[in-house]
Amino acid sequence: MSRREITEDDVESLAVGAWVLGTGGGGNPYLSLLNMRLLHREGKRVHLIDAEDLADDAYVAVIAGMGAPLVGIERLTDHRVFARAARLMEEHTGRKFDAVMGMEIGGGNGVRPLLVAANLGIPVVDSDTMGRAYPEAQMTSVAVGGLKPCPMTVVDVRGLESVVETVPTWKWAERVGRKIVVEYGSTASTCQPPRTGAEVKKWGIHGTTSKAIAIGRAVREAQRTHADPIVAILAVEPGKLLFRGKVMDVARRVTEGYLRGITRFDGLDDYSGSTLTIDFQNEWIIASRDGKPLAMTPDLICVLDSVSGEAVGSETIRYGQRVTVIALPPPDVFLTPKGLEHVGPRAFGYDLDYRSVFSS
Amino acid sequence: MSRREITEDDVESLAVGAWVLGTGGGGNPYLSLLNMRLLHREGKRVHLIDAEDLADDAYVAVIAGMGAPLVGIERLTDHRVFARAARLMEEHTGRKFDAVMGMEIGGGNGVRPLLVAANLGIPVVDSDTMGRAYPEAQMTSVAVGGLKPCPMTVVDVRGLESVVETVPTWKWAERVGRKIVVEYGSTASTCQPPRTGAEVKKWGIHGTTSKAIAIGRAVREAQRTHADPIVAILAVEPGKLLFRGKVMDVARRVTEGYLRGITRFDGLDDYSGSTLTIDFQNEWIIASRDGKPLAMTPDLICVLDSVSGEAVGSETIRYGQRVTVIALPPPDVFLTPKGLEHVGPRAFGYDLDYRSVFSS
Repeated sequence: MSRREITEDDVESLAVGAWVLGTGGGGNPYLSLLNMRLLHREGKRVHLIDAEDLADDAYVAVIAGMGAPLVGIERLTDHRVFARAARLMEEHTGRKFDAVMGMEIGGGNGVRPLLVAANLGIPVVDSDTMGRAYPEAQMTSVAVGGLKPCPMTVVDVRGLESVVETVPTWKWAERVGRKIVVEYGSTASTCQPPRTGAEVKKWGIHGTTSKAIAIGRAVREAQRTHADPIVAILAVEPGKLLFRGKVMDVARRVTEGYLRGITRFDGLDDYSGSTLTIDFQNEWIIASRDGKPLAMTPDLICVLDSVSGEAVGSETIRYGQRVTVIALPPPDVFLTPKGLEHVGPRAFGYDLDYRSVFSS
Repeated sequence: MSRREITEDDVESLAVGAWVLGTGGGGNPYLSLLNMRLLHREGKRVHLIDAEDLADDAYVAVIAGMGAPLVGIERLTDHRVFARAARLMEEHTGRKFDAVMGMEIGGGNGVRPLLVAANLGIPVVDSDTMGRAYPEAQMTSVAVGGLKPCPMTVVDVRGLESVVETVPTWKWAERVGRKIVVEYGSTASTCQPPRTGAEVKKWGIHGTTSKAIAIGRAVREAQRTHADPIVAILAVEPGKLLFRGKVMDVARRVTEGYLRGITRFDGLDDYSGSTLTIDFQNEWIIASRDGKPLAMTPDLICVLDSVSGEAVGSETIRYGQRVTVIALPPPDVFLTPKGLEHVGPRAFGYDLDYRSVFSS
């Protein structure tokens, strides 16, 4: 495939689609969208390339915001901070990046690679390492693949900068990185362990930026034509409707650098008389209907505004919202025993065997 | 002054003297002494130079163990780990060190620069930045001098490695560095922000390695001749006898990466009927006699075994020990208003104005 420009309209769609794929986390993309609009106005243009077009020895930055999404909407991080995370990695390793990709396509983290691309003048790879959003550093395809878990840079908007240089495992990358992020104030910009082109080709989850743009375009088109945006999403993605209801309660706390809690919905329409709860750790992890598990990680649980079709995040969900909950299928890499060990229900402390909503 | 070899006998004296200057902290020097004996047997020789012999643009490593001393006697750190902290700094900054000095002359940290010197083949500067030991990174002469508080490397015996690249203040260096150390398990080897020769000359506390060797030599000579080692110390240092007694109680906990607590002594001999308590945060901070403050930081409070004259540390003190408590005068740099702001009683949370035991 050829290198193609990401238009301003694509960015608008990407922000909507990435928020859907964020499954509640990854941070609201709105601020990153504003940043991209600004960069576009300044004449910056960003291009998308396919992983297969990377040289095997290409040096690829992997970008992500890290922390508790609720903090991210109070302490605002602009494009220069994400660019600095990548630049610090270049300075530390003595090597220039050829391209940039996202650690996760979900939420603001689906848009942030564009901010870095615009600053560094390099293309964005149409791949990520989660195919959604997840809260922890070891919950990626590259961690499942056993790729090197370091170095990682951690910077913040006030100029605090650290490098996690050597760790033996991805869980250690998460442990040390998270403590730095918590001390910064529970939000930071990171450049994750750089990848070679060969590694991205083998272990990346491919086409996810394009997928997010397609989802966002479908939602925006439905909004424009007053069609049902949920139906529009399910027309472009092989998802499943799980529930319609109203938010009745949200219990939410910022703890250990994450946003954790539980939210409860009362059913509406066909779901009247039924109750749904969703446990979250930044992302929606387990949805239970009337006390019985209904959907669980790694299936993507997406909570969407029933009218606009736009996603609702764990930091923005609030009493009274009318929502539709759908599931989207997870990347294959997480369905192996090793994959489930990294991101299945037990990885989040739930004594449950994974059961896909798509297998029934 | 010329470059002079630190003999094996000097190292034995240094270990004893640095432990006295450790004021309870800096870690027991015994393990570092064993390391130096080993390196000596392998033919490694270490030389001491004066700060004034450094070129202004010389690049000087500043070495320290960081963490809770109690953990340091369970998770043993050898000379290669301290050398690695310095090597990581060289790799990160792209510059080779010309010399090495200690962050603090007190405790094991008074000996550790020698371990690095032996590995890197560079001399040790006869200076440090505390003239004793202190628990926090901002409690140094270079912090009082407003020198740059970064970068810092933090490595451990299992190969965990991090770099605190940019922080705005020394307190932030302490905050971020400490969180990394705590996550490692509350003990790590660090290379503190490197200094130029000019900075060492201006802000170093000079002659402290020689001073520690002299104190240690006096104690060892007294032991050999069955003389009073306390008298021997007070003959080479202008100190003051504060108390003689027996340890009656130690309340000690590892918290936030420090060893904190309080120890209580019942008086013996001239001090019979009187009680001394000493609050500690790694180091002895405030000594109170019968409830009234008797001596406080930055004065050096040294708890010594009454028979051997060797120091007792906050991690090794225990019920029943017969001890003599003396005070030694602090470096001048800590007696200015800025110095007291960094290391006076209020810097440790005590609502007390500093009153020197030497002014009465």
